[in-house]
Amino acid sequence: VDENVTTCWFDPLFRTEAMRRVFSDVARLQGMLDFEAALARALAAVGIISSSAAETIASQCRAELFDLANLSRASAAAGNSAIPIIHELERLVAKESPEVARYVHFGATSQDAIDTGLMLQVRDAFDVMSWDFEFLCNALEGLSSKYKRTPLAGRTWLQHAAPTTFGLKVAGWLSALTHHRERLGQLRSEGVVLQLGGPVGTLAPYGDQGEKIVALVAQELHLSRTDLPWHAHRERLVEMAMALGLLTGTLGKMARDISLLSQSEIGEVAEPPTAGRGTSSSMPHKHNPVGCAVVLAAATRVPPLVSTMLGVMPQEHERGLGGWQAEWETLPEIFELTAGALAQTRQIIAGLGVYAERMQANIDASRGLLFAEAVAVALTQRIGRSAAHSLIERTCRRAVEERRNLHDIIAADQEITCVVSVEELNCLFDPERHVNAAARLVDKVLERVRLLSQKELSH
Amino acid sequence: VDENVTTCWFDPLFRTEAMRRVFSDVARLQGMLDFEAALARALAAVGIISSSAAETIASQCRAELFDLANLSRASAAAGNSAIPIIHELERLVAKESPEVARYVHFGATSQDAIDTGLMLQVRDAFDVMSWDFEFLCNALEGLSSKYKRTPLAGRTWLQHAAPTTFGLKVAGWLSALTHHRERLGQLRSEGVVLQLGGPVGTLAPYGDQGEKIVALVAQELHLSRTDLPWHAHRERLVEMAMALGLLTGTLGKMARDISLLSQSEIGEVAEPPTAGRGTSSSMPHKHNPVGCAVVLAAATRVPPLVSTMLGVMPQEHERGLGGWQAEWETLPEIFELTAGALAQTRQIIAGLGVYAERMQANIDASRGLLFAEAVAVALTQRIGRSAAHSLIERTCRRAVEERRNLHDIIAADQEITCVVSVEELNCLFDPERHVNAAARLVDKVLERVRLLSQKELSH
Amino acid sequence: VDENVTTCWFDPLFRTEAMRRVFSDVARLQGMLDFEAALARALAAVGIISSSAAETIASQCRAELFDLANLSRASAAAGNSAIPIIHELERLVAKESPEVARYVHFGATSQDAIDTGLMLQVRDAFDVMSWDFEFLCNALEGLSSKYKRTPLAGRTWLQHAAPTTFGLKVAGWLSALTHHRERLGQLRSEGVVLQLGGPVGTLAPYGDQGEKIVALVAQELHLSRTDLPWHAHRERLVEMAMALGLLTGTLGKMARDISLLSQSEIGEVAEPPTAGRGTSSSMPHKHNPVGCAVVLAAATRVPPLVSTMLGVMPQEHERGLGGWQAEWETLPEIFELTAGALAQTRQIIAGLGVYAERMQANIDASRGLLFAEAVAVALTQRIGRSAAHSLIERTCRRAVEERRNLHDIIAADQEITCVVSVEELNCLFDPERHVNAAARLVDKVLERVRLLSQKELSH
Amino acid sequence: VDENVTTCWFDPLFRTEAMRRVFSDVARLQGMLDFEAALARALAAVGIISSSAAETIASQCRAELFDLANLSRASAAAGNSAIPIIHELERLVAKESPEVARYVHFGATSQDAIDTGLMLQVRDAFDVMSWDFEFLCNALEGLSSKYKRTPLAGRTWLQHAAPTTFGLKVAGWLSALTHHRERLGQLRSEGVVLQLGGPVGTLAPYGDQGEKIVALVAQELHLSRTDLPWHAHRERLVEMAMALGLLTGTLGKMARDISLLSQSEIGEVAEPPTAGRGTSSSMPHKHNPVGCAVVLAAATRVPPLVSTMLGVMPQEHERGLGGWQAEWETLPEIFELTAGALAQTRQIIAGLGVYAERMQANIDASRGLLFAEAVAVALTQRIGRSAAHSLIERTCRRAVEERRNLHDIIAADQEITCVVSVEELNCLFDPERHVNAAARLVDKVLERVRLLSQKELSH
Repeated sequence: VDENVTTCWFDPLFRTEAMRRVFSDVARLQGMLDFEAALARALAAVGIISSSAAETIASQCRAELFDLANLSRASAAAGNSAIPIIHELERLVAKESPEVARYVHFGATSQDAIDTGLMLQVRDAFDVMSWDFEFLCNALEGLSSKYKRTPLAGRTWLQHAAPTTFGLKVAGWLSALTHHRERLGQLRSEGVVLQLGGPVGTLAPYGDQGEKIVALVAQELHLSRTDLPWHAHRERLVEMAMALGLLTGTLGKMARDISLLSQSEIGEVAEPPTAGRGTSSSMPHKHNPVGCAVVLAAATRVPPLVSTMLGVMPQEHERGLGGWQAEWETLPEIFELTAGALAQTRQIIAGLGVYAERMQANIDASRGLLFAEAVAVALTQRIGRSAAHSLIERTCRRAVEERRNLHDIIAADQEITCVVSVEELNCLFDPERHVNAAARLVDKVLERVRLLSQKELSH
Repeated sequence: VDENVTTCWFDPLFRTEAMRRVFSDVARLQGMLDFEAALARALAAVGIISSSAAETIASQCRAELFDLANLSRASAAAGNSAIPIIHELERLVAKESPEVARYVHFGATSQDAIDTGLMLQVRDAFDVMSWDFEFLCNALEGLSSKYKRTPLAGRTWLQHAAPTTFGLKVAGWLSALTHHRERLGQLRSEGVVLQLGGPVGTLAPYGDQGEKIVALVAQELHLSRTDLPWHAHRERLVEMAMALGLLTGTLGKMARDISLLSQSEIGEVAEPPTAGRGTSSSMPHKHNPVGCAVVLAAATRVPPLVSTMLGVMPQEHERGLGGWQAEWETLPEIFELTAGALAQTRQIIAGLGVYAERMQANIDASRGLLFAEAVAVALTQRIGRSAAHSLIERTCRRAVEERRNLHDIIAADQEITCVVSVEELNCLFDPERHVNAAARLVDKVLERVRLLSQKELSH
Repeated sequence: VDENVTTCWFDPLFRTEAMRRVFSDVARLQGMLDFEAALARALAAVGIISSSAAETIASQCRAELFDLANLSRASAAAGNSAIPIIHELERLVAKESPEVARYVHFGATSQDAIDTGLMLQVRDAFDVMSWDFEFLCNALEGLSSKYKRTPLAGRTWLQHAAPTTFGLKVAGWLSALTHHRERLGQLRSEGVVLQLGGPVGTLAPYGDQGEKIVALVAQELHLSRTDLPWHAHRERLVEMAMALGLLTGTLGKMARDISLLSQSEIGEVAEPPTAGRGTSSSMPHKHNPVGCAVVLAAATRVPPLVSTMLGVMPQEHERGLGGWQAEWETLPEIFELTAGALAQTRQIIAGLGVYAERMQANIDASRGLLFAEAVAVALTQRIGRSAAHSLIERTCRRAVEERRNLHDIIAADQEITCVVSVEELNCLFDPERHVNAAARLVDKVLERVRLLSQKELSH
Repeated sequence: VDENVTTCWFDPLFRTEAMRRVFSDVARLQGMLDFEAALARALAAVGIISSSAAETIASQCRAELFDLANLSRASAAAGNSAIPIIHELERLVAKESPEVARYVHFGATSQDAIDTGLMLQVRDAFDVMSWDFEFLCNALEGLSSKYKRTPLAGRTWLQHAAPTTFGLKVAGWLSALTHHRERLGQLRSEGVVLQLGGPVGTLAPYGDQGEKIVALVAQELHLSRTDLPWHAHRERLVEMAMALGLLTGTLGKMARDISLLSQSEIGEVAEPPTAGRGTSSSMPHKHNPVGCAVVLAAATRVPPLVSTMLGVMPQEHERGLGGWQAEWETLPEIFELTAGALAQTRQIIAGLGVYAERMQANIDASRGLLFAEAVAVALTQRIGRSAAHSLIERTCRRAVEERRNLHDIIAADQEITCVVSVEELNCLFDPERHVNAAARLVDKVLERVRLLSQKELSH
């Protein structure tokens, strides 16, 4: 446990330790100090200060030299987290050299330090998620491949519809997640940018050296550059929030499916049994899908937070009032909830119980109704849709009422057998047709995913 | 500083210490323990256990006996904050008496403890806000009364419209806040209810003593009762969230007005100058409206959180999956942001700089245009709206172009003076008409507010 | 079909014809005209104009005299729906008497007409919903009473938990809806208020007759009065939006429960079979819960719309820019989606198929696990919770693995039977205990609901 | 006016006629029919039906043959807009040939038609926006270039901060919009995809011809393909919603800036005066920024709608219940509000009044305070930040209190002039430094925008 990371009660449930660390107070502070150090070195590189002055400043840019509780209180007074840091950094540098201290934060404005520090945290956040992401995708690849021919009742509107396979359901999840990996990778490499503009974003304090200093600071911090300072243009941060929201939505879809398949009456999958997890204070027989609950909670909480990020974009003039401040806790919250949901999903998938026999039993329990659509298609070709649908609806109703198998009822129905032979009927009720179709699609997804992995590795 | 309250960086800016304490981990724990103690006493009152057994249980229901970090980790595993508490409480009680330990949490389910504990926190939260609320309303009463005749440019669509008074603007804020105080008071007295239903909300574990036990626990905790357990019916909590959202909206309206009136070009009011507040890291001349920014941030962040609370209402069956969990951090966040906004508003209003001379100067700078509507009304009565509006538009345009006062242009315009006498014109340009009208409304508001205060005191 | 009501494709699915009529363009227009007529009569009552002039104005305040398409286009240009109406009304009145036309809209501002017209629509909207509301509550009362002793598997976290009854589930819905009826009734009688303040809300155009005119207009339109004009204080409208959001949340909870109970594998209830409803273009055997889908869609769409209403409360100065305009389509949308969900729920409940035998079969299929909690409680009293839970978990696991009934396993387990007698065990596995408890709660709800109905009737 | 497009009152204000047409009922219908025609042709290409049969089907796939009112009512009953269309199409085709009618919609499911039809509308929607987009960007390029050296008070926290130029502010808008154009172009070319999967997304009805048929339908409709059907994976649609939300946010930022700059007291820009636009029913002198209000309303309404789209992603199994239905009106609403905001912004910018002399006057009115930061930077280098800030704060306070220019006060302050020479001071108060810096940044943006335009043209 990292003692720099404050944990509140529900953190271990909704968040990961690693992501908490990325957005901890100490990391926020260090991000801003990294900016100040890089700025000092850039000032040296263009000759405004000496190299040794830059290193004197940089030597004090270490979070452990600062008192976080004081900074927090002073931020509340200042309305701004950078101002007290800069004051304290100056004080520390002045102890080494009062002259050098005059060049701390030279030409920059608070928001330059705050936004750049945030971007450094954001970069770490992307990296922290990548391991869970990779593990999850690999696990899904395995599941999809393993169960690509395992029949499953396809369900639409929460009703049995027609057969599919469990592997195809998993391939759907995998395909979506693969898309998110690409998008987040793109944002990681293009959207993590330096903020440096001075008081109103003109770079005026640096005269004609502005562009050069920007380039140097960006280089030092390995950040991308933008054509303009973006103090009141928050598009890049909002894009990240949205990409995370999208990922959370897909994780929520997975959790929705898994929790529904885990219902007592269905029992086709189950979250991995972990000691002490999912039990009840009053009901010892229960095995609650706790992981799914956490993921669904995240998938419910993140969209309104994304709405907040979008809603505060109309920020006033060169720097906004209220909108910018509304981002401060919101974006980290989105990262943390998303990473928490990702980690939970990884754990669920890593040990997911898959019960193929229950899948088959649930198909059997539908007494052939899952194949009604195939018969309807065949009949339609012979006698038209409305006649076909009437016939099938009638036989389906009988199957339900008489608790008999649809196949038997249809095979005994002369109106049907006079246009569809019994051999053909047998074929229509054969799950293999569905399994083959599903397996073809699974193969396509797995092939694409593997190609992408190879491409990634070759980079 | 209360060491039981964990503070993250922005807490002192967005939240109050008092509200942080109400929703601290330790208060959450104590709330659940208070439920367990009250339950034990109720069990004794109906004869299921002895009084001394109940007191043995109650004696261990003290938060300081528990290790919060362990509980937090165990909650994450269990998916539920009550289970590890109950286990630990049993362990503690068993050290006193193994037999008595068997009746810890008897017949209840985790959510009974969690929801009841939350309600105890909620009640404290209402109480904590009441002081700021009262102070704020009193201060607004004073401001409204003091400036009820101070002319102010009324602005619609961000354009000068017609004169009003600063006191009337303040009375508008006060009137809305008074309404919120009544509503929150109503929720405080009716909506803070006990949760007790057992595993699926039937009270079955208590046989025919269920109703009696519910009554006893409610009485012990001074909570209201509902006709049914409400594990999956979250209406009461959502109503609180909404009432807080509404309050934050009104505070946001105040902050919007104040921040706009504080603009450099307008300068009619200013947040109180506090040491170190509202300064800039790069611009020593600035005085930023930091309090308004915090309030506007809250008014932006709370509505989507209310949307979350509303959106998770469709919870599954007897207890939900994902929806309930999404509430856990959301409702406290709404309380904390609202209380933070309330405290900031109190501070702003307590020391608000009001610059009547700038208000007058800005009215004067409009060169009489603020009175155009009054002239238009008078003219309309004589020559009809469209002719009147044409005349006034023409004279207004001249006033702007020639940088002259509208009064002088109109007084020299024979087309107008032939229907409206100069005496009448002077009267139309007299701010007193507007001031008198505004003052009448202010008096009405103040009278109602005072009546309400007296009614409250007499209770 | 009312030809004044424009219908778009999904309207008949998501909205009711009656509510579409309330918020139709023609009703919006008539609402504003009703305001203008009432204002004219008030002006006459205080002697500003003659009674016959007032009636001349009122005689033209009929929507059928106006061209809606032109008004819509002119509104877009003006940015405001009232301005072109007032111009046109003046033109119409001027045809009767140019002198009288000068007093059309006298002293009022556009927003006075727009907001008051909206309130008149809002009042109709409440009334339109009341019939569905009453029908639904009556139907739920019947269902709750009929099935108050019908055993149902209580489900928490989507897992079987302990028995409840279907009547108690229905009573939970009814209890919540009864609360909403009271709240909406309160808003209907207190929150539907007049807007009249003139350009900046001072009532200055009316001199010292402002208060009297306000009282007269309110009386004429049967609207409540406020202490101040509320052009930029939108609390009342937002409160309505929130109350509707809360109602939609409860309806969503009902639809969630019903759709889950309707799953192919569960089949405990079914939406009423309506000709052509819930069928599939490809699957003739399906019976989709279409009504639930509509209600859940509403329960998903309304919360963010409520967030919009809350989020635009910080409106600028005496009248806002952007926020007010954002309400124009949002509030009607909330009313329409809510009323649509209410009507769908009424239809679902009116013909709900309830299959008690499937409820029993699903309980049976759990092989006694639903009673594990009761045994655990009994055992806990004898041997303490952890020992009891261990024992029960072990026997539950065996019941699942060996596909045997938990009762039989427990009855054969000497570790258990040595502390709990077989007679007691039989009693613990007796559903009657749960049914009795549930029925007691149902009776309490029904009693309260009937008391409220009597109180209402006696008014 | 297109009579196929139903117009409600506020449509001409918030939406464009062109976008209303794209999402009209008739276009929705035609989109689905285009899918059916393309499917028929693909079936012919793989030999399931004859070419002439395909053309028989295609010949009836014309919206004008259908009765929209009937379809709407039937959709409400079916819960699904495709079913009644398919029935009616079959009926029409059957009039030509009953045999061919049997192959209408062969193997597909309703959602295939609905989603593909939607994608065809979405593609048109992107195209419809592109003209406004291009016009707007060109106009901003012109403005940015023209005013790149026009001094403007840079404002942060709504307070004067330091000088910038109006051209740089415009360049900020342009830079963001250019980014959105690229992103929307990317979504237009990659994200507009075919939906075809059959009942549960396995393509089983087509046996081993599924992939080929998918390719043929996609080719016929010029749509991209996905590796899997995406009935319950809505990522692509949500990404579009988010990209539009982001665009609306930027437009909102522009409208915020423009409306603030248009305030009576500031008057630096003004919306173009259009006949009848922005006037008041009571105040003839007013010129309300109506366009900004519409854009800000959209920027407020769209984020919660995006939240809806994100929030409904966890759709159940192979096709969801409630979530899918919630999208039906939400996505078109997002497109329409965004396009409306874009068109309004285009109009605002096309005729924006820019008043350089007021910009200068407002700078002058600050009595040199806008240059305080530059002096502070210079002083800091000599005497350290805290001494420098103290000095500057003191002189700023005197400037405000004595209503004198900061330059004069500083030039007379020996404590300052002993470290900064008067020549240097003059230079620090010279707006050219700021103008030069801003102009450099503007040039960079314009260069990048022009490069991108050339790249686009060369494609």
